[in-house]
Amino acid sequence: MAASLPETQRAVCFHPPAYDIRVESVPIPRIVHPDDAIVKINLAGLCGSDLHIYRGHEGVSEVAICGHELVGEVVALGASFSADAIDRPELYSTLKIGDKVVSPFTVSCGECQFCRLGATCRCVHSTLFGIPVLPGGQAQYARIPKAGGTLYSLSSLQSHSYSGRTIDISSITDSSLILLADILPTGVFAALQVLQHPKLSPMLTGTPYPSSSFLPYSHAPLKAQASTPLQSSDRLLSIAVIGLGPVGVCATVALLDMLASLAKDRGLRFQVIAIDLVESRRRKMEAVYATIDKDGKGSGQFRVATVDEGVDLVREWTGGTGCNAIVEVVGNASALRLAYQLVRPFGVISSVGVHQEPPIPFTGREVYDKNVSFDFGRCPVRATFPLALDILLKRQDVFGGAGKEADLIDRVVRLDDAPEWYRVFDKGECGKVLFDPWLR
Amino acid sequence: MAASLPETQRAVCFHPPAYDIRVESVPIPRIVHPDDAIVKINLAGLCGSDLHIYRGHEGVSEVAICGHELVGEVVALGASFSADAIDRPELYSTLKIGDKVVSPFTVSCGECQFCRLGATCRCVHSTLFGIPVLPGGQAQYARIPKAGGTLYSLSSLQSHSYSGRTIDISSITDSSLILLADILPTGVFAALQVLQHPKLSPMLTGTPYPSSSFLPYSHAPLKAQASTPLQSSDRLLSIAVIGLGPVGVCATVALLDMLASLAKDRGLRFQVIAIDLVESRRRKMEAVYATIDKDGKGSGQFRVATVDEGVDLVREWTGGTGCNAIVEVVGNASALRLAYQLVRPFGVISSVGVHQEPPIPFTGREVYDKNVSFDFGRCPVRATFPLALDILLKRQDVFGGAGKEADLIDRVVRLDDAPEWYRVFDKGECGKVLFDPWLR
Repeated sequence: MAASLPETQRAVCFHPPAYDIRVESVPIPRIVHPDDAIVKINLAGLCGSDLHIYRGHEGVSEVAICGHELVGEVVALGASFSADAIDRPELYSTLKIGDKVVSPFTVSCGECQFCRLGATCRCVHSTLFGIPVLPGGQAQYARIPKAGGTLYSLSSLQSHSYSGRTIDISSITDSSLILLADILPTGVFAALQVLQHPKLSPMLTGTPYPSSSFLPYSHAPLKAQASTPLQSSDRLLSIAVIGLGPVGVCATVALLDMLASLAKDRGLRFQVIAIDLVESRRRKMEAVYATIDKDGKGSGQFRVATVDEGVDLVREWTGGTGCNAIVEVVGNASALRLAYQLVRPFGVISSVGVHQEPPIPFTGREVYDKNVSFDFGRCPVRATFPLALDILLKRQDVFGGAGKEADLIDRVVRLDDAPEWYRVFDKGECGKVLFDPWLR
Repeated sequence: MAASLPETQRAVCFHPPAYDIRVESVPIPRIVHPDDAIVKINLAGLCGSDLHIYRGHEGVSEVAICGHELVGEVVALGASFSADAIDRPELYSTLKIGDKVVSPFTVSCGECQFCRLGATCRCVHSTLFGIPVLPGGQAQYARIPKAGGTLYSLSSLQSHSYSGRTIDISSITDSSLILLADILPTGVFAALQVLQHPKLSPMLTGTPYPSSSFLPYSHAPLKAQASTPLQSSDRLLSIAVIGLGPVGVCATVALLDMLASLAKDRGLRFQVIAIDLVESRRRKMEAVYATIDKDGKGSGQFRVATVDEGVDLVREWTGGTGCNAIVEVVGNASALRLAYQLVRPFGVISSVGVHQEPPIPFTGREVYDKNVSFDFGRCPVRATFPLALDILLKRQDVFGGAGKEADLIDRVVRLDDAPEWYRVFDKGECGKVLFDPWLR
């Protein structure tokens, strides 16, 4: 099944070894496997991790079509897409030409054991878009492998309701939907890893660790010979977010939204400190926070801080004890050291920063003596889509395009101007940029 | 309140710098703070971590009464113990002279925020027994600070029932109860950290990550556009235990007991591989396993293995994918490397081994690329007592003294022979030794 497509398209091409971006005419991708879909791209994102390749840090030695964030429409489907594909991921039997779709930044088949279990980031077919073996989304068209597992269809959804307020999903803009490709699910995952961790269960449940509602097995408890009971001050959850790039901002908004619900439903209180070295990022976070509805902020305290201010504020707000949890969205050793410094004993560090070769900067004694828990690694984006879309819809005050200062998207630009925008973005002189491949 | 006590007692004393243990006459401890209790010791344990001091690795530079595992009877109570102490931990108003008690290896006050939250290992008053500032339990009497928070009373408990079978708690021997001081709660905690971790929720719940039953907040999920459904083979939980010293054996027995319940109640299946370098430890684990009732083994597979056999078996049993989780009970870099090698992507490492100065032996890229979660640190023993006692009672087949080969306690010896038993234990020529301070 395919609409009639032209022969060539414009695409943003990386030429090795580094700092060489050219917009070129290349063949339009075709279905090469029955599970493929071809997507006509409405918008493609320029992401911080594109810069790893741009700067030559990934050792990419062949020409590659860049980009791993895309939203678009299906224009061709392989032979696997059929009403008969009933023992396969749902979209193999339901996806249609013309459907609006978003793709995670990696392929996930939806059929291997990792995908079935929701660990879609570890799919055995996982491949990052935007490298030589898998051309990316900064183009007019892209081929999506394992498309019935990889893609998420917006066309199959009509609306979603939040306490009386109904959101029409077709009204959500492409520049909002593209946040689903990477940064919003990664932020949601970062926040979720913290709030799901059993070490935080006493604050959520009001019962001491190991909270019986978190026990995995049926159990007739013996008398605890209790400590003094939890006080309301014990249920004040203190969380720091380290790193306020786009993912950090998404993580903060998601965290605040979840905490606002928890505070309402379960009676805990919270304080969140969002930390970054860079002034423009802190200003963006401030502006974003200002746009959040009361419902999404909840009744907690919130502060944006430099590293030094953050250290002082954590000391002041927690009486020197430290935060219950840290969300680390930077991905280097100094961010991990700061996380360790700020976390309280028996606390949790959720690290979604993309760490590189340097060793994890802790001694065995440090992690033992502080009872630290760590969750490292990549977001299972595809599995996190339903949750991320939920927050995207609910928090359109932020993610719907909140006006210049607070907008997570700095600007939408022409694909042909990609070389210039890579330069500007690399220098940190602009925020998140989207390419509209049809803008002339 | 105090029974009349003699003036001096026999005690096992460490003399710095190393390898110098003497059994000496020392003053019997007295109440020095209203929260103190004096316990007449029935049995005291010799633990692997006593060897850190013995070998001079802890830099202890003064004479110290050794030992941090004790079970005994209350012979004196400070003025804080009173029916009026109603706003304090329960035992301040209920503990009586003559009560049978067990003490965790560290003080925990039961009143600071860490204790209220169940993180008793991080009590602000935490002090290890058996160091110069806090004389230990290898003696005839010991002073227990913050005793209303620290101690656990067995006398206040009568019996506990398991599907029709009722266990009389007064019938449990001291050499069984002393397992509560350290090794059994630590093993239970190690197992619990694995089974409570949200990354294992798909195997427990049969729904993909992020399982909605593990979501901390109320949420109207959007359509998942599902992967293919979980297969029964996806719910085969594979767990390796690394290190089969007494804590490792306890962790394995606790894990099997919890898994047996989960298999019965929730329909998952499991396979457990218990790994150690040392043949005598592997033999002990085999013998212990042979004593476990069908009810505590469940229907899972179990194998004891050397490191090489373990690596092969994990490959074979998991089709090369690796274990869902690892319980690490050794506390050095090579055990952590083995844990990393054996864990599957998106897996969990619960590390209760006591790690020292060497760095955590992973690069940032390794932990990111494998999505590894780690839980490090000391067991909150006091908070884990009710769960550990539950398993102690339920698994008297193992913990009640299972006969020579399978017994977790190698022998009960005279306190006066401590210098010799430290030497033998240090050389690895005996298993766990208990001192009976009244044996002549």
